[in-house]
Amino acid sequence: MNLADLRTPALVLDRTVVMRNTAQMTARMKAHGVRLRPHLKTAKSVEVARLATLGNFGGITVSTLAEAEYFAAHGFRDICYAVGLVPAKFAAAARLAAEGVRVTTLTDDLATAEALLAYARQHDARFAILIEIDTGQHRAGLDPEAPELIELARSLDAPPHVRLAGVLGHAGHSYHAKGAAAIAVVAEEERAKLVRAAARIEAAGIACPERSAGATPTALCGTRFDGLTEMRPGVYTLFDLAQHGLGLCRLEDIAVSVLASVIGHNRTAGHVLIDAGFMALTRDFGAHEFLGEVGYGFVMEERGRARIDMLVVNDANQEHGMIRVGTNADYARLPVGARVRILPNHACATAAMHARYHVVEADEQVHALWERCGGW
Amino acid sequence: MNLADLRTPALVLDRTVVMRNTAQMTARMKAHGVRLRPHLKTAKSVEVARLATLGNFGGITVSTLAEAEYFAAHGFRDICYAVGLVPAKFAAAARLAAEGVRVTTLTDDLATAEALLAYARQHDARFAILIEIDTGQHRAGLDPEAPELIELARSLDAPPHVRLAGVLGHAGHSYHAKGAAAIAVVAEEERAKLVRAAARIEAAGIACPERSAGATPTALCGTRFDGLTEMRPGVYTLFDLAQHGLGLCRLEDIAVSVLASVIGHNRTAGHVLIDAGFMALTRDFGAHEFLGEVGYGFVMEERGRARIDMLVVNDANQEHGMIRVGTNADYARLPVGARVRILPNHACATAAMHARYHVVEADEQVHALWERCGGW
Repeated sequence: MNLADLRTPALVLDRTVVMRNTAQMTARMKAHGVRLRPHLKTAKSVEVARLATLGNFGGITVSTLAEAEYFAAHGFRDICYAVGLVPAKFAAAARLAAEGVRVTTLTDDLATAEALLAYARQHDARFAILIEIDTGQHRAGLDPEAPELIELARSLDAPPHVRLAGVLGHAGHSYHAKGAAAIAVVAEEERAKLVRAAARIEAAGIACPERSAGATPTALCGTRFDGLTEMRPGVYTLFDLAQHGLGLCRLEDIAVSVLASVIGHNRTAGHVLIDAGFMALTRDFGAHEFLGEVGYGFVMEERGRARIDMLVVNDANQEHGMIRVGTNADYARLPVGARVRILPNHACATAAMHARYHVVEADEQVHALWERCGGW
Repeated sequence: MNLADLRTPALVLDRTVVMRNTAQMTARMKAHGVRLRPHLKTAKSVEVARLATLGNFGGITVSTLAEAEYFAAHGFRDICYAVGLVPAKFAAAARLAAEGVRVTTLTDDLATAEALLAYARQHDARFAILIEIDTGQHRAGLDPEAPELIELARSLDAPPHVRLAGVLGHAGHSYHAKGAAAIAVVAEEERAKLVRAAARIEAAGIACPERSAGATPTALCGTRFDGLTEMRPGVYTLFDLAQHGLGLCRLEDIAVSVLASVIGHNRTAGHVLIDAGFMALTRDFGAHEFLGEVGYGFVMEERGRARIDMLVVNDANQEHGMIRVGTNADYARLPVGARVRILPNHACATAAMHARYHVVEADEQVHALWERCGGW
């Protein structure tokens, strides 16, 4: 199948680029002596998961129970569900564990830990729990100095039903630090806070084997990883304009794009219309902080990965994207029916608008369809 | 099934409210003597389509070919695909027409019209085309005074292969007009421009039977509909905070919400975390123009449709929503595991993040699952 055969809008994935991105991260984490547990919330694809775990220990990270179940069904056997667990989700996690999957889940809440233990005893279930640590993002997690950390660790140290697997943090604020030096500071904060939390727990006589950190920026810019056992970056598998704006990838490292057709010209308003609106591109503006005029993404040639002038998708309705153009040459270059590819602001968000990837390689033929896992 | 049995986040639809919303619009359009052709791009559900067409002539509007094919497969026989057609989509439209579906599609582009006629003659296909008119939004469409309007109409008046079905416009700028009086001005602009375009075409001796207008605001606030044959509102089926902000619905008319669980407290940051992030809620900020502090939606009780204080989802990551809370009472009221429902900014965008509706009625039991049509 050819790109020209695809109905637009369509999500296109360049496998060559994914392979390069995943191999580079694998090599980097190996060089730093830390295990790579790729976060699959970006790609949500078993084929991408296989590339991302290649040469690694096989563990993955997910953001929903649906992902955990999907990857388990495809043979993954070490899954960290990295969002705070609630009692209504105990049964699903226990079911996966009973099927032989090593599932680790999170909490930072004592009442939840107590409910978990009660559930585990009642159902003779087994849970391995990570305590979520706030490594500076101030989203979720306990401060490593929090007095209640030890009490929580103690409540999770209840074998055989509940076992403390370790501590986990995510430096999401690294997405707002510009440049390698600034991100390295965030990475060191992430590392130091996890190491400190683990040290406090171990000083209380409780084992804390895992110290799991990571976001793509801190994995790429961190200079020290000692004391950490694993990193959990995700968006590096596909990259996007937000990561480009942070200086972490080139445009040619962005593996995912939305193929779109020109559906009209409005010379009075001064724009070309495409059939990729916010439904295909998302409303995510994640790349605006550092790239300036990004709109809903950069407009690229259908083939060859070249940017068309400095055009962006300036505005978007549900199924209409609007590209502001300055000259008659732009209209002539983009007649109705012409095709373009849009590089996304935020790969996690844009890819989620699509049920599958149309997988191309350097020849830009469509070699495969890779389904994505959706829902919860 | 009970709401308590649903894994969160989950999209909840109140059928009672949909029935009230659709019955009211049907009655209003009937009273004004104009046909209602509901736009299903919001609900993307055959069950909602049946409620919306009840008591009407049965025609519907869609925003993608996937929707057109989905609704055709479920027995709908008069479908307007209201996004500019491109040559690569001719075959799909022709296929539906060949199956006995009355499909109308749009163009405002002479080269596309000529390509369409060539295609139709080559494949002995039949097309009914509406000329898209810019009724003031300045997105797509010809100005009703545009000199090229008549030439385009003439090129589409080529029976039996291509037939001019009429003119169509969408006053999307009505979403930015506050209050019934301001919206009524936009509605009259929409009506007048379509009537004027049709009059020019007919003065040139070409039949222009349909004059199709409409958005929910203009359908609800328009005072004159003479000269129009049909209206195409869509979001009224579900309503949302954006429409509430325009003064077009009460909170209790919003049929759709996202059920979410509290997954953590961060007292240092001052927020409660829920498991509905931008993946469940979207990044859409459509309600901000007129409602002020909306964030990613209003926080409601799980049952009973009451708002919890004045709480909103202030920030969202992929699977985390953050609700800023002021008092200890809020934390106590929202323990980990508690459930809330989030009213969305923009129903079209939020519903699109979910594969199905969990359908409740006044008793708030889950009576059905209604699948949504996705993709393109």
